[in-house]
Amino acid sequence: MAVRTVRIIVTLKPGVLDAPGQAIQKGLDALGHRGVEKVRAGRYFELEVRDADDLEQRVREMCEGFLANTLIEEYRYEIV
Amino acid sequence: MAVRTVRIIVTLKPGVLDAPGQAIQKGLDALGHRGVEKVRAGRYFELEVRDADDLEQRVREMCEGFLANTLIEEYRYEIV
Repeated sequence: MAVRTVRIIVTLKPGVLDAPGQAIQKGLDALGHRGVEKVRAGRYFELEVRDADDLEQRVREMCEGFLANTLIEEYRYEIV
Repeated sequence: MAVRTVRIIVTLKPGVLDAPGQAIQKGLDALGHRGVEKVRAGRYFELEVRDADDLEQRVREMCEGFLANTLIEEYRYEIV
């Protein structure tokens, strides 16, 4: 069965303090990169997964059960 | 001046050992998620940046000078 590429991005939910993002913003500013008004930091996963009829459902289960902490994080994905 | 959203993904270059990715793959398998043949782990940044004529050049400088270690990592971005 064919293999599909799944790209997943996990970020903190809006309203959750993003300390890494704030540190990165300060770092960029200290290096002279003006005009960066906000930074949000997140994680990226690229999976090669054997195709299946329920692939999208399985991706959601992987995200909600392992890759993201849905209490404080949200995720989005694309299957290409 | 308008603010643009810049989405940046940083991943290890092909051929560089991705130990976190391997650990995540094993974790998914241990949880019963079969069929995941490969995982690559990376970082994601979402920046709000004041628009400028040289925005794209500035994004590349931020990536190469701070957000990515271009010895072992590659980056891609989109300006939306």
